[in-house]
Amino acid sequence: MMTASANRAVTYVGPGKVEVREIEFPKLELRDGPGVNPANVGRKCEHGVILKVVSTNICGSDQHMVRGRTTAPEGLVLGHEITGEVVEVGRDVEFIKVGDLCSVPFNIACGRCRNCKERKTGICLNVNPDRPGSAFGYVDMGGWVGGQAEYVMAPYADFNLLKFPDKDQALEKIRDLTMLSDIFPTGYHGALTAGARAGSTVYVAGAGPVGLAAAVGAQLLGAAVVIVGDLNTERLAQARSFGCETIDVSGGAPQDQIEQLLGVPEVDAAIDAVGFEARGHGGDAGHEQPAAVLNSLMELTTAGGGIGIPGLYVTGDPGAADDAAKAGALSLSLGTGWAKSLSFATGQCPVMSYHRELMNAILADRVQIAKAVNATVITLDDAPRGYSAFDSGVAQKFVIDPHGMIAV
Amino acid sequence: MMTASANRAVTYVGPGKVEVREIEFPKLELRDGPGVNPANVGRKCEHGVILKVVSTNICGSDQHMVRGRTTAPEGLVLGHEITGEVVEVGRDVEFIKVGDLCSVPFNIACGRCRNCKERKTGICLNVNPDRPGSAFGYVDMGGWVGGQAEYVMAPYADFNLLKFPDKDQALEKIRDLTMLSDIFPTGYHGALTAGARAGSTVYVAGAGPVGLAAAVGAQLLGAAVVIVGDLNTERLAQARSFGCETIDVSGGAPQDQIEQLLGVPEVDAAIDAVGFEARGHGGDAGHEQPAAVLNSLMELTTAGGGIGIPGLYVTGDPGAADDAAKAGALSLSLGTGWAKSLSFATGQCPVMSYHRELMNAILADRVQIAKAVNATVITLDDAPRGYSAFDSGVAQKFVIDPHGMIAV
Amino acid sequence: MMTASANRAVTYVGPGKVEVREIEFPKLELRDGPGVNPANVGRKCEHGVILKVVSTNICGSDQHMVRGRTTAPEGLVLGHEITGEVVEVGRDVEFIKVGDLCSVPFNIACGRCRNCKERKTGICLNVNPDRPGSAFGYVDMGGWVGGQAEYVMAPYADFNLLKFPDKDQALEKIRDLTMLSDIFPTGYHGALTAGARAGSTVYVAGAGPVGLAAAVGAQLLGAAVVIVGDLNTERLAQARSFGCETIDVSGGAPQDQIEQLLGVPEVDAAIDAVGFEARGHGGDAGHEQPAAVLNSLMELTTAGGGIGIPGLYVTGDPGAADDAAKAGALSLSLGTGWAKSLSFATGQCPVMSYHRELMNAILADRVQIAKAVNATVITLDDAPRGYSAFDSGVAQKFVIDPHGMIAV
Amino acid sequence: MMTASANRAVTYVGPGKVEVREIEFPKLELRDGPGVNPANVGRKCEHGVILKVVSTNICGSDQHMVRGRTTAPEGLVLGHEITGEVVEVGRDVEFIKVGDLCSVPFNIACGRCRNCKERKTGICLNVNPDRPGSAFGYVDMGGWVGGQAEYVMAPYADFNLLKFPDKDQALEKIRDLTMLSDIFPTGYHGALTAGARAGSTVYVAGAGPVGLAAAVGAQLLGAAVVIVGDLNTERLAQARSFGCETIDVSGGAPQDQIEQLLGVPEVDAAIDAVGFEARGHGGDAGHEQPAAVLNSLMELTTAGGGIGIPGLYVTGDPGAADDAAKAGALSLSLGTGWAKSLSFATGQCPVMSYHRELMNAILADRVQIAKAVNATVITLDDAPRGYSAFDSGVAQKFVIDPHGMIAV
Repeated sequence: MMTASANRAVTYVGPGKVEVREIEFPKLELRDGPGVNPANVGRKCEHGVILKVVSTNICGSDQHMVRGRTTAPEGLVLGHEITGEVVEVGRDVEFIKVGDLCSVPFNIACGRCRNCKERKTGICLNVNPDRPGSAFGYVDMGGWVGGQAEYVMAPYADFNLLKFPDKDQALEKIRDLTMLSDIFPTGYHGALTAGARAGSTVYVAGAGPVGLAAAVGAQLLGAAVVIVGDLNTERLAQARSFGCETIDVSGGAPQDQIEQLLGVPEVDAAIDAVGFEARGHGGDAGHEQPAAVLNSLMELTTAGGGIGIPGLYVTGDPGAADDAAKAGALSLSLGTGWAKSLSFATGQCPVMSYHRELMNAILADRVQIAKAVNATVITLDDAPRGYSAFDSGVAQKFVIDPHGMIAV
Repeated sequence: MMTASANRAVTYVGPGKVEVREIEFPKLELRDGPGVNPANVGRKCEHGVILKVVSTNICGSDQHMVRGRTTAPEGLVLGHEITGEVVEVGRDVEFIKVGDLCSVPFNIACGRCRNCKERKTGICLNVNPDRPGSAFGYVDMGGWVGGQAEYVMAPYADFNLLKFPDKDQALEKIRDLTMLSDIFPTGYHGALTAGARAGSTVYVAGAGPVGLAAAVGAQLLGAAVVIVGDLNTERLAQARSFGCETIDVSGGAPQDQIEQLLGVPEVDAAIDAVGFEARGHGGDAGHEQPAAVLNSLMELTTAGGGIGIPGLYVTGDPGAADDAAKAGALSLSLGTGWAKSLSFATGQCPVMSYHRELMNAILADRVQIAKAVNATVITLDDAPRGYSAFDSGVAQKFVIDPHGMIAV
Repeated sequence: MMTASANRAVTYVGPGKVEVREIEFPKLELRDGPGVNPANVGRKCEHGVILKVVSTNICGSDQHMVRGRTTAPEGLVLGHEITGEVVEVGRDVEFIKVGDLCSVPFNIACGRCRNCKERKTGICLNVNPDRPGSAFGYVDMGGWVGGQAEYVMAPYADFNLLKFPDKDQALEKIRDLTMLSDIFPTGYHGALTAGARAGSTVYVAGAGPVGLAAAVGAQLLGAAVVIVGDLNTERLAQARSFGCETIDVSGGAPQDQIEQLLGVPEVDAAIDAVGFEARGHGGDAGHEQPAAVLNSLMELTTAGGGIGIPGLYVTGDPGAADDAAKAGALSLSLGTGWAKSLSFATGQCPVMSYHRELMNAILADRVQIAKAVNATVITLDDAPRGYSAFDSGVAQKFVIDPHGMIAV
Repeated sequence: MMTASANRAVTYVGPGKVEVREIEFPKLELRDGPGVNPANVGRKCEHGVILKVVSTNICGSDQHMVRGRTTAPEGLVLGHEITGEVVEVGRDVEFIKVGDLCSVPFNIACGRCRNCKERKTGICLNVNPDRPGSAFGYVDMGGWVGGQAEYVMAPYADFNLLKFPDKDQALEKIRDLTMLSDIFPTGYHGALTAGARAGSTVYVAGAGPVGLAAAVGAQLLGAAVVIVGDLNTERLAQARSFGCETIDVSGGAPQDQIEQLLGVPEVDAAIDAVGFEARGHGGDAGHEQPAAVLNSLMELTTAGGGIGIPGLYVTGDPGAADDAAKAGALSLSLGTGWAKSLSFATGQCPVMSYHRELMNAILADRVQIAKAVNATVITLDDAPRGYSAFDSGVAQKFVIDPHGMIAV
């Protein structure tokens, strides 16, 4: 067993503000702390491991908390995109070993409940006392301590962790592999559940990292044309850098521009990589309209198509613009979708369903996800600046390197 | 070729009113008439057949028109649930023969467009000039003359029609087989796309004929428990008659009663067999709340489950209670569904994907759909009374027998 | 922890012979013994539980060993169909508790390897040092001690075991629930992978317990007609008892009889519930012809259909009739299958993929598997007589009741 | 209607020999001629079109006939890979127009039978009087006149033909688009049914055009690594030209070389692009061993994997090396596959299920199939030399250009 040592982590300290603070070194137990569900306090994790964090990324869903749109408590340790080296293993861990370099799915899953056995690791029944589904470093998700830190504990390690087959090779490709903990599978899941496949035309709403990852996912699935729409010209340029067509939705609803690109105003499959903080198109650009993206996608998806919704929709949004949105109600033109026989897939991506095959695609140089999302490595101390830059809309995906292990 | 003779049909003559009128004997051509799309006028149908209608059922979606909630024109010939004997075949019909007794899917499909080739016959691209998808006797669906008549023309007969293998046997089972043109496949599709399968628990919202057919469909798929909810006690009794559990939603939201039945307040799969004319539960029972059913289903479906939506949602509803609903906008708590990773399937059932296998199940006595929906045979002249009784909420599915061919 | 006590078990003692012997009381460790893989000796199983066996069934695949057609060593403890009450849990067991009544899948699976995570529990990578896939009480499967005993240890209990929700209810239905450990899922898997579904016609080769379970599985999937073929008239009568059609293959190849039953000489889906000990049809009836069943199924399955192969085929068969069969080579007319675009699914059933939903079907009285396979309860001491009776071809499935817990 | 004019075509004239001969100009009727099934003689085809052949490829399955291994009659007009411009349409053709440039699936399908409605166009029930499934220019396939000609008739044109959206663009990409009539969908189908997907490792047995197309298909599906095995070094070089790894099987069984490439001796998915004319590996290289490829693929496919079998297996092979093979019986080690839970997919590719999406991938420059298979354009008069060169094993796919319409 390792001697407890110091640990530092990115913590939420109030709306718009994060800080790097000293926190306790992790144990194979979930101790009390900010945001920890009382029913989880003291939970033994001999099935877990302690990881030295090699890389941990800032995610758009972290921003929801940091913007103060949730009930995240002061002191919450952030970070659910974790890649690390195992430094300690619980006595019940059988296959993961000290020294292994692993990707940790952001969904925490027990591997022992009905849902985990059915590969639905995004809605594990045993890790969040409040409801199915959990994640590291996230409000109302059970209280598992976040991984934007030097060290972190990951439970149910034999089940959750994906070991990279060769450590040196993995460190060389760490900018790509670090995307396996969340956004690459999440984007791919969005594309897959939307029905993207060989020869498809695909529209992705949102050119943030998840949208770009969905675009890469659609390409990997063989899509003929991938179109990305956003208001942010820098992010659209990023999408063009790896072969996507783009649409600036400040110029109006996307259909017209889709027609110019494809000859028809519709695509086979559409992905909502925006979620509840959606803004309007054209003249309404910039105003929050939580149903704007979904209503638009129903218009622009061809009859019989599918809509994948990796973008987060919430059950309540205290910071919303109007009462309906505060209660999580969206004004959806479902009749438009019904008339076209559309299908809709929602929810957290079950990372484990995809991370191994996407790792193989990365290791074989079949896909360049880091370049597509413009992975940008920063130190732990630079994390607050990273949060702020990301919030300003830069076309970068920030990868925190707490131990300076990533080669420049 | 047959000599043109007389023809009589059920026609819509104004809100709340249908009449049996003399209409023209069908030709292998779509002639002008009430509701016929101008672009379809004069369309040659050598690929079609003329059927002597053996049975044709009154459908809940006919009621939407008859209640005056659509723009259906006066004189529209109703009827999209058609079973008949071929009395004339077009020159391009190669495999269907005069004398064949056939089920006609309510979806009219060309068998030659991309969607038909992909089995998406509910959204055929070539039969409705306005948008994908068509049906007999329905407003804004291209203008194909309805089949609540003595005779009707069915286009693309080799593709669309399902011939019964033995005519005598089929006439004996005609009360069951007549359900193949719409509600049995529609209900089954709802159950299938909701994810109902062996061992599932399934909730069906709505105990009208489609809801009952969905319940039968779920049973055929092996569901362990099927629960049907409605406000109408007579229809609930009908559901109990073939082994369903039932919930009277006037007593409150269904979850509590589901918990009493199953020990948990959720089911694996849920089916919306109500659609946009939904009413509230409990204290709100009786008031139209178009999103009430869908919001309720998101609450009562277990994480990872599916919601099949055969119930019709419209793009506009002139008769709705409020402005949002008039524009077809529903106030949906999508966040509830998102948190549970639910999926949603909408649209017309592609009848052809299911009618052959369901026919085989009927012919082998594997399923008793007529009994489940309480098929009630009436004459053509009684059709107006059938409409009126159905609208009053009786637990019957009315089967019109225009030629007195159905044995008592 | 429980005090070690006595234990008695059915053991293989030589070709054609089994005996009930005293064996060691199980520990949470795999100790050396007959047939235990050296690499598994001493393996700690803190993830396991010790079960008081409530029911454990004799399986046709046990017969392969007992007939001396394998390299099973003297002293091997038999039994892979286990249902039991937990009497001790390892320290790494978190959700299964002492007192729980559980079904144990015959496949032993770690829940932590790639295949288990992909629901392929029949080919777990971590439990059999020789190759993917394992089972209790079986030659060359890792050496996990069999469960035709008073007590047995089951590893990876949180992952593998299916807890019955209500113990009293479960004991009442134990004759049905005991089939969840193997033959009901195995038969269902055969039907499902053959493509059986609502309205299908299905042929099952073999009316032993797995064949009968496949027939029940096909019915549960909605099959219109299920036809079972065998040489054994008593077993055929058993198949007729729950609504199957039957074919006595001693009367010749099944196609002619299928044509008499269905009007066509082919079915939509076919299941091989016989395996490598197949015998010929008609004049060849009784002579071993290992490819006879598969070649016959290719003839009688309709173009585009599927063949599910739960019946065991081996890589070598020392007791076979000719050299090719000794080396596991079958003379297959694959061209017949190719011309019809048939698909073939082989291998152990991954029980965990099905046992929960089939349990729900049993508990809701949706299916009567015990009656279908003629479950017959015997004492542990009667096990040798059960083996002998089963080998003689009686139409019974023997359920051993080591503790007299099953009510008469 | 067009005036009948001259027509010239590639015909089979005896083992090893083809000639360009004058044949009749096609009519919208199937006239008597070499190889025409008597039941098809005189069949009216008002649903058909006459095509001016723009490109028509020589296929490996043509070689089976030309090598004299079938009962193909003297005078049979060859050619089932057809792309052409419509010069005449039957009176019942509604959507295909004179002037359209179209790809014709090699499978002839009616679009009106059960199988066609289920997308199983490779086993259409109505076009071949002998059994399900048909093709142009092929022995025992109904007698539809082949398309290695100046003009050809294609029946059921609205259903079968895929119209290119832009004629000029299509002519520019004709070397790629010509592969849509058979080998690109066939290879893709092999990869898909083998289970190739994002991140997979895939082995393709055979580097002929179908094998190379399967490799391209696997890449399009996102495979991480595609390995192609063959005895022919020129063809292996062709495979390397677009990023495949290769294995020269004359050096022994592929597993060892797979292990060197991947670190493990197995792949996730395997494709048999060889069929019944398989030859041995290593020391047996060059000798026909019809089961050699399939037995090898069972060895080298990982447990739980799939084997796609686009390679043709026949029900009888008069030219085979031994009696068993003459009767179409293969000596398969099925136990090897069973122990690994492998699945097997056989049969003709249903081209229509894939050609539209693969066309879209070509038109969007997402895939370069012509380059991958080394498409080589020749004149009609050069066809005999093309056959001979192809038979000698050159790494080329010959595209006949009967009218000199393909730009150099």
